Order: sequence, then structure tokens, then C-alpha cells
Amino acid sequence: MSQTVNRRIVLASRPVGAPTPENFRLEEAAVPQPGEGQVLVRNLYLSLDPYMRGRMSDAPSYVPPVAIDAVMGGGTVGRVVDSRHPAFKAGDLVLGFGNWQDYALSRGADLTALPSGMARPSWALSVLGMPGFTAWYGLLKIGAPKEGETVVVAGASGAVGSVVGQIAKLKGCRVVGVAGGAEKCRFVVDELGFDVCLDRRDPAFAARLKEAVPAGIDVYYENVGGAVFNAVLPLINVHARIPLCGLVAAYNATALPEGPDRMPVLQRALLVKRAKMQGFIIYDHYATDYAEFARDMGAWVADGKVKIREDMVDGLENAPKAFAGLLEGENFGKVVVRIAPE
Amino acid sequence: MSQTVNRRIVLASRPVGAPTPENFRLEEAAVPQPGEGQVLVRNLYLSLDPYMRGRMSDAPSYVPPVAIDAVMGGGTVGRVVDSRHPAFKAGDLVLGFGNWQDYALSRGADLTALPSGMARPSWALSVLGMPGFTAWYGLLKIGAPKEGETVVVAGASGAVGSVVGQIAKLKGCRVVGVAGGAEKCRFVVDELGFDVCLDRRDPAFAARLKEAVPAGIDVYYENVGGAVFNAVLPLINVHARIPLCGLVAAYNATALPEGPDRMPVLQRALLVKRAKMQGFIIYDHYATDYAEFARDMGAWVADGKVKIREDMVDGLENAPKAFAGLLEGENFGKVVVRIAPE
Repeated sequence: MSQTVNRRIVLASRPVGAPTPENFRLEEAAVPQPGEGQVLVRNLYLSLDPYMRGRMSDAPSYVPPVAIDAVMGGGTVGRVVDSRHPAFKAGDLVLGFGNWQDYALSRGADLTALPSGMARPSWALSVLGMPGFTAWYGLLKIGAPKEGETVVVAGASGAVGSVVGQIAKLKGCRVVGVAGGAEKCRFVVDELGFDVCLDRRDPAFAARLKEAVPAGIDVYYENVGGAVFNAVLPLINVHARIPLCGLVAAYNATALPEGPDRMPVLQRALLVKRAKMQGFIIYDHYATDYAEFARDMGAWVADGKVKIREDMVDGLENAPKAFAGLLEGENFGKVVVRIAPE
Repeated sequence: MSQTVNRRIVLASRPVGAPTPENFRLEEAAVPQPGEGQVLVRNLYLSLDPYMRGRMSDAPSYVPPVAIDAVMGGGTVGRVVDSRHPAFKAGDLVLGFGNWQDYALSRGADLTALPSGMARPSWALSVLGMPGFTAWYGLLKIGAPKEGETVVVAGASGAVGSVVGQIAKLKGCRVVGVAGGAEKCRFVVDELGFDVCLDRRDPAFAARLKEAVPAGIDVYYENVGGAVFNAVLPLINVHARIPLCGLVAAYNATALPEGPDRMPVLQRALLVKRAKMQGFIIYDHYATDYAEFARDMGAWVADGKVKIREDMVDGLENAPKAFAGLLEGENFGKVVVRIAPE
């Protein structure tokens, strides 16, 4: 083993509003030794995802909060360095929940072996993993777009939105992305093949969106909320579907927006347009739908039909800053922290 | 023909807020004569339904507005008095859209013959007709309650809510109704068999609702909106379903409620609870689902398993006042105007 120190990032305090460096603390501990039935994994890549903001708060949510002074949780790709578990041996590449630290112990049940010759192991944290499955499930199982329909997706250059739009194109839809800034928009159209991408920071964004969807919006894949949703709602078609997997724009909010109370606006839109809005959490669907996703997406990625752009951050110590940036849309692509070289 | 005058109620002006008598005008015209292929119907019963408020406004909705000075639209049961259509003859009992007037001409396509010996022809306007179909479709096809789940329904003594709750009981659910006043609540529990009914006017309503659903809410059948929805939302379970067929509490509103803007509250609840909210308009579903409804409901009504209470209003001239009362919850049961004796 090359190191004897396990660096780990713990939650020092609960953020109020946007997370700051003071909410985290980098600690050093001894690298743990695997007991009988355990596996010691050297984390190589850490996934940073918006849902982690929920785990930093103690408000009721679909994931329990991380305790103060506990290591921040997160999905990882790593390499087994020592194993006392029959299913794993040193050198194996594994996907798991190794958290924000150099080394993780596991009892094996949460580990998935990855092919040793895998071209891009970190993709198991994006297009071939949780964000890709989130995109695939929400779009196809809830949004159920038909050929020729118009699909709008926010966060279009990000881990989920970029995959949503590419799948929608494969299904024959007109796809309008929304992203933050001209550079991201160019990438979304030129590299990912969306029909249009609009800059959400454009003061005329709502008017541009209306122009971009002359036949209205059949599916809005919701992962941000806020101003993008406000612009989308008046444009939805009869029988529109709105799968909802996240509300990044609201995660750092400390108070509700000023009035009036527009809850009746949303209710009325759903009624008059006979529309469906449905929240989902991808962890509910692994048992029933993951195999179908893995088959679809494995083939699309192998054929180059679905791509992912990674925003690779070097160094575990940079995870807090990168995470704060993710919530502000400062990333460009799927945020992955490289903890150690492969 | 016993009358030569056709009384009809036209829309004199568009209501701002609650409809008033000044928004309507009773006119007299000659009873029309049926041309070739036409049927003249004497209207006996006129259905009053909340959706009609939408037709009095010219805001975009799912039904086109009634023109100023045009006869108010509405479903009716009537008797054919003269027919130049091969499918109908004088004396036939028919369901149709005869509007707020004594006599209606039809080309036949919108008429459905009712059995001549039908015990309660007016029930074709409630439990055996549009409101019953609305209840059945929304509850079973969108709400999809499972045995043992908790179903909450507002407007529990009304045309739709009363049927929703009775079907939910037949499906083995715990059913909590919400109605306006103690007398309605007694009726809902004692006569319709709901497990509990809560008075929405009780200042402690939200706390009472929480007590009444110890296992949370799996299905909320939404037809009112407003304060009832606000009390329901924090109590929905994971994977809750909210079919949405109306928002009576908001129909007379001239402005949005004061802030803060709670749209994010609804979005977050749907996300965290992985819940579905889906608007529907029953007219979309006649072609595909009406036959199944008619079979189910026909049997339940014949067996006395589903009942309806009618709030019968005598005289066409009283329709405007009865309709205004319906929007304020002053009715007790399905509002039907008796235009003429059978």
C-alpha cells in the first residue's frame, strides 16, 4: 500500500444557503484494515451530484442527512487494494459508495465490479451510471416522448440533461436544450446534436424559448426549477409530461420567492393542459429497470451515439469548491473529482 | 306541443369574480321547429357543474367560452317532442347538451337514448353520467388505489367527490372525505359509508386531517384546490398520486393569493415524495374508457353500492342563483335544475 494516511472530507456544519469552504473539513486518519469479509478500496474518482446538497441539510428529504463530523457521502470508482471477501481481489476496478475520501472499506454488497479493460472507468459515474439511468428512466418511462414531439431539457450540458437530449434525438424528437452561457450552448448543439440550445442567462430567454418551440412543449425534463420552469409552463401542450428529478435552482434557497403565490398557476396549468408532473428518485428503480437501461445505454455509448463531457477536478481537497460551483452552474459537463491516478 | 314560448338563459356579461344575477338574462323566443334530420327536445333536467364557470370567462381553457348573448351551455335530460330524425321519435327520453333553456334542437349526434323505464332519469347527469365517469376515471385510472391505502377526497358530498369515496370504499381503501359543514359530513359517513369526514370550515381542519390519516395519504382526488390542498400536501406518502379534475376554490378568484410564491413547495413535495399530479378532462376519455365505466357503475348503482344525493332546484329561472351557490359550496349533493316535470 503506497499510503498510510486516509484523507477524508467531513461535514463540519450545515450550509445555510450556498455551501462554503467552512462547511467542510479535511481530516487525516489511518488507512483502515479490512476485517473478515471486507474489501479495502482506493478511491480513484468521486462523483459530485446536486442531490448531495440535500444530504447536507437536516430537512426531511428522500435521503437521510450526513451527520455533522461524518464523511460526506458519494459514489466512487476505485481499485481494490486488499480484500478478505471472496468476490473481490486486489487490482479489481469497482463502482461503489466510497465517499469523499482516499480509501473506503466495504462489505462488498455495495460494490459492482467494472470490466478491467474499461476505456473510461469514470463513465460509470455518469452516462453509464446513476445520472445516465436518471436521464433514461425519466425521459422514457415518465416522459414517454413520441417521434416528432418537442422535448425541452434544462442543464443541457450537464450529467443528466446532456444524456436526456441525446436519447430524445435518438427517439426522433425535436430537442431544445437550456444551458448557462454561449459556450455550453454551442457544445450542446455542435457536439451533442440538440436542435437548439438557449442561454438561460439571456434577458430575453422566455421569448427565445417561445420562438424555439413553435409546436409547443410535449415533454419538459425538469431538473432545475426556478426561472426555466417559469418560462416553460405557459408553453406546455395538452397531455404534456413533466418528469421531475431535481430542482437545483432551489437547493440553496433559504426562503421562498416573493409572492404572489403561484401554486394555483401550476395547478391550473396541469388541469387545463391535462398534463402530468411526476417526481422520481432513481434509486427506486434499480431492481426493475436497471438491466434494460444498461443494455440500451451500453450499446449507444459503444456506438458513439451518446457522449458525455466530464468536468474533471483534480484532487480530493478541491471537492468542496467544485461542489459549490456545481450548484451555481459553474461546471461544464459531469463533475468528477480525480482522487488518484488510475 | 303544450308551450309556444322557449325560455332561455343567456350570458349577459362575463363575471368578474363570483357570478351574479346581472351576468345572466332570461329571454323568451318561439319554440323552434325541427328541420329535416333534426330533433326537438323538451328539456326536463339541466345539470349544473363547476366547469361552466370556465365557459363564462374568455381566458384560455379547455372549453371555449360561451359568447355574450348566447345561451349558456349545459348537459340535459329531455323528452323528444318532435322528430324528423330516423333514430328518435316523440316520447323518447334522451341525454344531450340541451343548454339552459326549455327546448333544444339537435341533429341527433349529441343525443343518447335513455331506457324509457329508467327509475331516475336525472341520474344520467350525475352518477351514471359525466360526474360519475369523472370520479371513476380519475380515481381508478390515475389514482389507482390499492387495498388498504388511504384516499382523501374533497367536495365529499358533491357530484364527483361522493362517487370517488364510494368507489374507493368498494376497492378496500380507508376513505377520508372533506366537506363544508357538519350536516354534510354526517351524510358522507352515515349514508355514503366514508370512514371519516372532516369539515373544511373547522379552524383546526389541518390538524384534524393529520389525525385522520395516521398512515399518510396515498391518493388525493383533487377537485377543489385552495386550503384543502394546502393541508393535504404535507401529508402525502411516497409514490402518492393526485388526480386533478377541477379547482373550484379558485374559479372565482380574480387575483393570485398573496405570497410567498409556494410553487417551489409543490415542486419539492412532488420530488421528495416521488409523487404524481395529473390533470385530466373527462371528455378526452369517452372513446376509450366509457364502456368500462358504464358497466362498472351500472352494476354498482343497480346493487345499491353507489348512491347519489341530488340537490334539485325547481325552475329554469333559478339556474343562475343555483350555479353561483354551487361555486360557494352552498349545494348539498349534485345540483340539477328541474325545468319541467317528467
